Amino acid sequence: MPDTPLAIGVDIGGTSIKIGVVYRSNVIEQTKPAPTQDFDGPEPLIDHLVDSVEELCSRHRGIAGVGVGVPGFVDFESGVVHNLTNVPGWENYRLKEVLSERIKLPVIVDNDANCMTYAEWKRGAGRGLNHLVAITLGTGVGGGVVANGAMIRGARFAAGEVGQMTIDWKGRTGQYNNLGALEEYIGNEEIAVLAQRVYKEAGQEMTLDDCSPAKLSIAAHKGDKVALELWDLVGAKLGSAVMNCCWLLNPQAVVIGGGVAKAGDLLFGPLTAHLYSQLSGPFKEHLMVLPARFGNEAGMIGAAAQSLEAAGIAILP
Amino acid sequence: MPDTPLAIGVDIGGTSIKIGVVYRSNVIEQTKPAPTQDFDGPEPLIDHLVDSVEELCSRHRGIAGVGVGVPGFVDFESGVVHNLTNVPGWENYRLKEVLSERIKLPVIVDNDANCMTYAEWKRGAGRGLNHLVAITLGTGVGGGVVANGAMIRGARFAAGEVGQMTIDWKGRTGQYNNLGALEEYIGNEEIAVLAQRVYKEAGQEMTLDDCSPAKLSIAAHKGDKVALELWDLVGAKLGSAVMNCCWLLNPQAVVIGGGVAKAGDLLFGPLTAHLYSQLSGPFKEHLMVLPARFGNEAGMIGAAAQSLEAAGIAILP
Repeated sequence: MPDTPLAIGVDIGGTSIKIGVVYRSNVIEQTKPAPTQDFDGPEPLIDHLVDSVEELCSRHRGIAGVGVGVPGFVDFESGVVHNLTNVPGWENYRLKEVLSERIKLPVIVDNDANCMTYAEWKRGAGRGLNHLVAITLGTGVGGGVVANGAMIRGARFAAGEVGQMTIDWKGRTGQYNNLGALEEYIGNEEIAVLAQRVYKEAGQEMTLDDCSPAKLSIAAHKGDKVALELWDLVGAKLGSAVMNCCWLLNPQAVVIGGGVAKAGDLLFGPLTAHLYSQLSGPFKEHLMVLPARFGNEAGMIGAAAQSLEAAGIAILP
Repeated sequence: MPDTPLAIGVDIGGTSIKIGVVYRSNVIEQTKPAPTQDFDGPEPLIDHLVDSVEELCSRHRGIAGVGVGVPGFVDFESGVVHNLTNVPGWENYRLKEVLSERIKLPVIVDNDANCMTYAEWKRGAGRGLNHLVAITLGTGVGGGVVANGAMIRGARFAAGEVGQMTIDWKGRTGQYNNLGALEEYIGNEEIAVLAQRVYKEAGQEMTLDDCSPAKLSIAAHKGDKVALELWDLVGAKLGSAVMNCCWLLNPQAVVIGGGVAKAGDLLFGPLTAHLYSQLSGPFKEHLMVLPARFGNEAGMIGAAAQSLEAAGIAILP
């Protein structure tokens, strides 16, 4: 059986651009992350990508493809980036076409949450499964869907927007005028704002910074009742959206990653309790709720793996 | 190109059992519906099915399969019925195995909402699409999912339970202890109970019977403001659940059938208004919200078509 070739994974984030050489589930070399704001639109960023790819190819033989994950809406087939969240200047940019012409390698471009989903499915917590939902919790909430052993991208390659799903038909207004969007309840900042309010009601004045999910984890581990109650609330709200994914898709597993998931059992405990108490037998009997395997490298690993699949190379675990 | 063979579709409902010979999208002969309660468990019902199938086969040559739709949880692969809603005596019954042994034809057994979905996808409003969600509105709310040009059944063949999806994480308790289940808001009876209350608040005493969805349609067509407001509420709640299906799966179409959908524009108007105002571009630009083509015959037509597919016969539109 031939070994899996190397591929380059690019993760264009709102803050920085990460570029790495990926071998299976490992980033074996990574260039220095560049601040996204240093690039004034797609062209200078493409120059940076081409330089980096050429440099990495000069040191690693047999790189078979380049995968790019972006924080926005992409046409996966054509590789046109329709727009990027918090990165101006990207309107209907033909990223796949321009990049593949210059580097002479197969290129794929996909939404970052899809790349994370692909990484967890092919290399991570969801390996070997045919039906899973992956969710990433951070400043925003994203996700991806695998069913019947394939990525589900939908009509316009936009599927998996778990953060926009509603948990309250009369709830808070999300970024698309969508009422009750999950992201408005359990995004990083929303958790901090809620925590500040609950602490205040309990007679404690806290700064927003003291109410970050990371700080709330530390407080909860020390037995702080308010912090524990907050994690229960986050688990209940996330559980509600996860439940909807389960009723609709009956997955084998739900994989949860991103910064907020670093809370570990503080999140997974309430989440699974709320979830399992509200699902019927066939939906929960074999359901696994799994922490993601990959952290910051998920985007690079998933993008790289997808470029191999696009190049016709079987993805071995 | 060979013609599509005939198949028999069986629809085991909570009230009656329908058995028909199906040619493409038509039930060309149907036996007299038998009341479900006349059968004391699976065995006498199997006898009835075998008699009916043999009778229909004696009059129609070339019947290639039998499909059975049931109102409950089925293992689609093995054809074991785990349980039926409102039909006692069906616990882990090997329906497919027992029936196919006796009638010597390929048999499939599936959930009734999946049969409806399959009918609409292969023969009805969703023909030719690769990504769709079908929803049936009646006493209960059911559904089914097609993505990447295939039925999505999930880990235990239970996918598509749109009626159990939550629209309020702190809402009404559904039949599985699930808070905010859509079915608890827009099932037939729930609509009537809500209507009775809203009329009372408006100073009008009404019986529950006067508040049925059918009666509410008549009143709304006459310009009754309370009835119009009620249909808007139903559209908003259903829209919330449909929106969740869209964010997660990005379908090309949502097909809506069942008794409550007979309200037509009274339902589809508010539904699409609420839905389109809360989705972003790629989710709504080409999204079709379509009335189902089939009514009471959807189960028979979908079950029959699935039996042909299981027998290796291509399903022509």
